[in-house]
Amino acid sequence: MKNINIKDLARELNLSVGTISKAFHDSYEISEDTKNRVLETARRLNYVPNPYASSLRGRRSKNIAVVIPEVADSFFSLAINGIESVAKEKGYHVLICLTHESFENEKTILQEFQGGRVDGVLMSVSRETSESAHILNLMGNGVPLVFFDRVLDEIDTAKITTDDFESGYKATEHLIQQGCDNIGFLGISECLSISNRRLEGYQKALNDYHVRYDSQQIINCTNDAVQNDILIRELLQGPNRPNGIVATVEKLTTPVYRASEALGLNIPADLKFVCFSNLETASILNPSLTTITQPAFEMGKIAATLLFKSLEKNDFNLSKESQVVPSRFIMRGSTI
Amino acid sequence: MKNINIKDLARELNLSVGTISKAFHDSYEISEDTKNRVLETARRLNYVPNPYASSLRGRRSKNIAVVIPEVADSFFSLAINGIESVAKEKGYHVLICLTHESFENEKTILQEFQGGRVDGVLMSVSRETSESAHILNLMGNGVPLVFFDRVLDEIDTAKITTDDFESGYKATEHLIQQGCDNIGFLGISECLSISNRRLEGYQKALNDYHVRYDSQQIINCTNDAVQNDILIRELLQGPNRPNGIVATVEKLTTPVYRASEALGLNIPADLKFVCFSNLETASILNPSLTTITQPAFEMGKIAATLLFKSLEKNDFNLSKESQVVPSRFIMRGSTI
Repeated sequence: MKNINIKDLARELNLSVGTISKAFHDSYEISEDTKNRVLETARRLNYVPNPYASSLRGRRSKNIAVVIPEVADSFFSLAINGIESVAKEKGYHVLICLTHESFENEKTILQEFQGGRVDGVLMSVSRETSESAHILNLMGNGVPLVFFDRVLDEIDTAKITTDDFESGYKATEHLIQQGCDNIGFLGISECLSISNRRLEGYQKALNDYHVRYDSQQIINCTNDAVQNDILIRELLQGPNRPNGIVATVEKLTTPVYRASEALGLNIPADLKFVCFSNLETASILNPSLTTITQPAFEMGKIAATLLFKSLEKNDFNLSKESQVVPSRFIMRGSTI
Repeated sequence: MKNINIKDLARELNLSVGTISKAFHDSYEISEDTKNRVLETARRLNYVPNPYASSLRGRRSKNIAVVIPEVADSFFSLAINGIESVAKEKGYHVLICLTHESFENEKTILQEFQGGRVDGVLMSVSRETSESAHILNLMGNGVPLVFFDRVLDEIDTAKITTDDFESGYKATEHLIQQGCDNIGFLGISECLSISNRRLEGYQKALNDYHVRYDSQQIINCTNDAVQNDILIRELLQGPNRPNGIVATVEKLTTPVYRASEALGLNIPADLKFVCFSNLETASILNPSLTTITQPAFEMGKIAATLLFKSLEKNDFNLSKESQVVPSRFIMRGSTI
């Protein structure tokens, strides 16, 4: 496929290159309507903004930003360490900005970066993010961006992910092999790439092993701990209580253990439990926790290395650099 | 005590006010010798730079920075949430910068902030930090700073801490009451205010209860996990093995549990263990962990509230606003 440049885009839209450029820069001279038309067409044609097109501001902040939902999850704190290990070598500072899983926060954070405050961005999208205009805007402003872990598929840049589908499959297959025939799935968002791929792996494993699939057993957890406690308790005391659970995010561990204890359910005898988790304490929990452990440090390191390559070489094409780094399955006491 | 202003400082040093100001701004026009003389005298006379003295740059970045050693510790991730809860209301962005416990990193991060990149700083110093020139420099440049948790006593600004001495005392007293007569102490740094105060509480409790104090039982853990594993194993397999341990930082939990397991020591029968920790998993560990739990969210919230007050009111005196917020002692299975 031919690469679309800004001239092609201008021709397609019957607008001048200057107008397109102003639209990407979110200029007040351009109407919202036109901006939206430009962004939609850019998306449709798979236009990759050239970060070096806007040379005005230079590239001298010596800062990169990491935009992530939270730091309480060990995945992110380990990924930050991987990112900083590269940035330090390059003499760059790392600014960490948290979206707290809010799309609105994510938008205002990226808007801030248009002023040349940072030279590049590493990002894992919020659970609410399903649109991409704010990201295309930033890239159109000459700030390169690399995704890690949680990505937006439609944006053409490097995406460093782990094998979410295979891991979801492996976790579910393991529970089936341990005798579970009614397996619950705790997701985090219907928008999120990682949650959906893990869910697809789960569904494929159920199908391959002829285990009944029941959409009632799929819970979309929220960003509110109290609400999650209620959802998990409801699942575990309902008439159709699962005997196995796959959870897609580390913070669901404590609620599942505590609800099981409160309801007199023994893990693993009554309920087998696998969690996607980088928790350091997984091995000393009661019982120790079977995990899908993501290569967090490595993912951060690869994402940062690619970002710096694109900062150093004008012709480096980030969109050809996506990588999938496999997770590790670690069997422990919560399933055996 | 009379407040020292920049004129008093100039008189004392026999320098012009302009020279002093340039020294605080780290100007290339001023020799290193003079800068050092100015900073030393400022410290000795307890000079508090007036953040509003330098009005040149204005106060319009709408960013505050949080400078902390790491985010892997739950204390810091909870404190960040407290800080962001205030910043969001004020329409401010929070930039998080990690020192990774390095004094050099801390210095370069603060230097970055002198250009007006942030309007104020919330800070917990690194384990290596014992000097204050980099902080005085920043404050002299008109950027107000509030400490939380780990502070430098000699700097005259608001310090939001917890009752480290009392908590160290309480943890130790509890172990003594549970029958321990040989109690180890795992510290993190001889420079750090929090580690020293917790140690003093430990020593006072031993003294009050006439339990033998043995400096061999005080271990200063490092920033290197492998090295910490070795130190903890040595302590637990030495001839003078403690039957109780107070640890001052959350990340020592897993190494203590794993070393005990490897050496065939049962917690709590052979070894009772209390840890300063905000770990969410404390209650589901094997055994559940007795903790001193810090008011992390609240400390972050108070520190941020004070910082914004000083940004909003020119005459707000941060140095009169220090607060001590008590920690909670939570007894669980690792000591009973």
